[in-house]
Amino acid sequence: MEYRRIKDQDKDEDSIHDDVESLRGKPHSGSPKSIVALGGNSGDRTKWKRKSIVTLALTVLTSSQAILIVWSKRAGKYEYSVTTANFLVEALKCALSLAALARIWRNEGVTEDNRLSTTWDEVSVYPIPAVLYLIKNLLQYYIFAYVDAPGYQILKNLNIISTGVLYRIILKRKLSEIQWAAFVLLCAGCTTAQLNPSSDRVLQTSFEGWMMAIIMALLSGFAGVYTEAIIKKRPSRNINVQNFWLYVFGMAFNAIAILVQDFDAVLNKGFFHGYSSITVLMILNHALSGIAVSMVMKYADNIVKVYSTSVAMLLTAVVSVFLFGFHLSLAFFLGSTVVSVSVYLHSIGKLQR
Amino acid sequence: MEYRRIKDQDKDEDSIHDDVESLRGKPHSGSPKSIVALGGNSGDRTKWKRKSIVTLALTVLTSSQAILIVWSKRAGKYEYSVTTANFLVEALKCALSLAALARIWRNEGVTEDNRLSTTWDEVSVYPIPAVLYLIKNLLQYYIFAYVDAPGYQILKNLNIISTGVLYRIILKRKLSEIQWAAFVLLCAGCTTAQLNPSSDRVLQTSFEGWMMAIIMALLSGFAGVYTEAIIKKRPSRNINVQNFWLYVFGMAFNAIAILVQDFDAVLNKGFFHGYSSITVLMILNHALSGIAVSMVMKYADNIVKVYSTSVAMLLTAVVSVFLFGFHLSLAFFLGSTVVSVSVYLHSIGKLQR
Repeated sequence: MEYRRIKDQDKDEDSIHDDVESLRGKPHSGSPKSIVALGGNSGDRTKWKRKSIVTLALTVLTSSQAILIVWSKRAGKYEYSVTTANFLVEALKCALSLAALARIWRNEGVTEDNRLSTTWDEVSVYPIPAVLYLIKNLLQYYIFAYVDAPGYQILKNLNIISTGVLYRIILKRKLSEIQWAAFVLLCAGCTTAQLNPSSDRVLQTSFEGWMMAIIMALLSGFAGVYTEAIIKKRPSRNINVQNFWLYVFGMAFNAIAILVQDFDAVLNKGFFHGYSSITVLMILNHALSGIAVSMVMKYADNIVKVYSTSVAMLLTAVVSVFLFGFHLSLAFFLGSTVVSVSVYLHSIGKLQR
Repeated sequence: MEYRRIKDQDKDEDSIHDDVESLRGKPHSGSPKSIVALGGNSGDRTKWKRKSIVTLALTVLTSSQAILIVWSKRAGKYEYSVTTANFLVEALKCALSLAALARIWRNEGVTEDNRLSTTWDEVSVYPIPAVLYLIKNLLQYYIFAYVDAPGYQILKNLNIISTGVLYRIILKRKLSEIQWAAFVLLCAGCTTAQLNPSSDRVLQTSFEGWMMAIIMALLSGFAGVYTEAIIKKRPSRNINVQNFWLYVFGMAFNAIAILVQDFDAVLNKGFFHGYSSITVLMILNHALSGIAVSMVMKYADNIVKVYSTSVAMLLTAVVSVFLFGFHLSLAFFLGSTVVSVSVYLHSIGKLQR
């Protein structure tokens, strides 16, 4: 089992550090700029800094993503085809990964860890997250037969719990008791912050609706945890190569989606029909967010990703007050308080282990 | 300063144990049933058992109290005068304390610790909580000029924070970081559980309204913490004697309230006008709850009291579903989850200190 190998690499609970440790210590890490020479302390600082930067980037990009969606909705309906936009996001991520690689090859030369060519054994797992997301996105069309849109927003918070549980089961990483409590609070806090007078309808969701919501949460959690497993499997492997292979399969599956869903529309109206400057901005933002997610998986983990996107959700609401004159509810303040305490508990929970 | 003495007695953070310890070790503790002879372990168990019983009693009595209020409201309006009922509650508590004392005197004889007579120095602080509650109750009439009733229910949760802060400042007892986080969560969770579509109006509360709510929270928190200080000042003193003196002053101040507010009504319609069997039940329940509060102050503390009454609030809602066909909101489930996590964190926060 592939996962077993990951577990064996990361005997220590604080496995992120281990990953980066082995990345630095790897004998065939050919980089002339290798940080092996750096002392443990400044190495820790470098790791901490990198982890913080990617987490911050993900938070800012995710919250601006939601703001762009609100903005584009205000500007009018989605005129463009979503499948072509998704394809372009994957293509852009591929291009950015290749550009980053080209720069690395120029500076450091081609090595075992940064060369693009790969083995069947390495690449065979990369399509799996793309397939999982595809199934989840297909289910999304059917769940609205059972739940309304605000109810779906509420049920999406089940992702938080499923990610925590699958992170524990699949990656075999432990969370302390306090961190588990913090995770339950994160889910409750995010849901509370999103409460509105019609939210109570979600309690009337049928058994089928609940089942679909739980399956979707598990699919999404599994895709996230599986991606982390793939990326962490070979810590010394350059992240841009790993991203390239992830996104190539993303492109392929989105090309299939265009053929199945929007082939006629694209043929008649053209690929870029309905694109505006805001569409371009959204594609750019999605591409950068996607890369930030991969970076967080490499240098931090799925737990950090969930916290980052949850905090982004709250940031979006606060920014929307200034940008769109949104009004913050008491439930939002209470939910934000609970999320803040959760972030605090997660950090002290780590120290107290 | 009186509090200084209390602090000196309780150098240890886990001061409840100390209190009971010194109660047992006190040389002039004349009780023939003194548990000094018991081993440390069974002593700990006795203390834990007593603490659990009084906490459970307070929780059950508080939640049934709220249910009786709903029941009496359903049966019709309050026909009786509230001031006479409050007076009878205090009188009943006095009588029950005296009955308990009479039994103790018969079994154990009159000792320094269980005799009713007292010094001016001991008794002089007993009227203070009664005065504080009186001021708070008077303010309650005025705050409704600034906040509506559901808003007041929400703002009352400020009591939780004020009790924690005053507990720390006045009794100089420490809460761990996790316990502070748990306390913030308790406040947020209770408020979330009480959310309803009109709750957002509380955000429009004026500065004067907020000030009054904060002052009322401080008065109520101070009265609670001060009562604990009085009761814990002399740990070997029999709780029934301490209760007797607390309740005598409660009776006196409620007698004044009758004279000021309801003198004409009582004179014209009689003292017991509008009393029903449910009124009698409510008075009985209030009296027992009051005694349970004193017991929790003696054998546990204000923090336990706040948790106990908060959990009681949630229990009331659940029981009301069965009794009155109430409907539980999503906000209630989220708030209850946060309160449950808070209780869990409070208990593990203690262990991890």
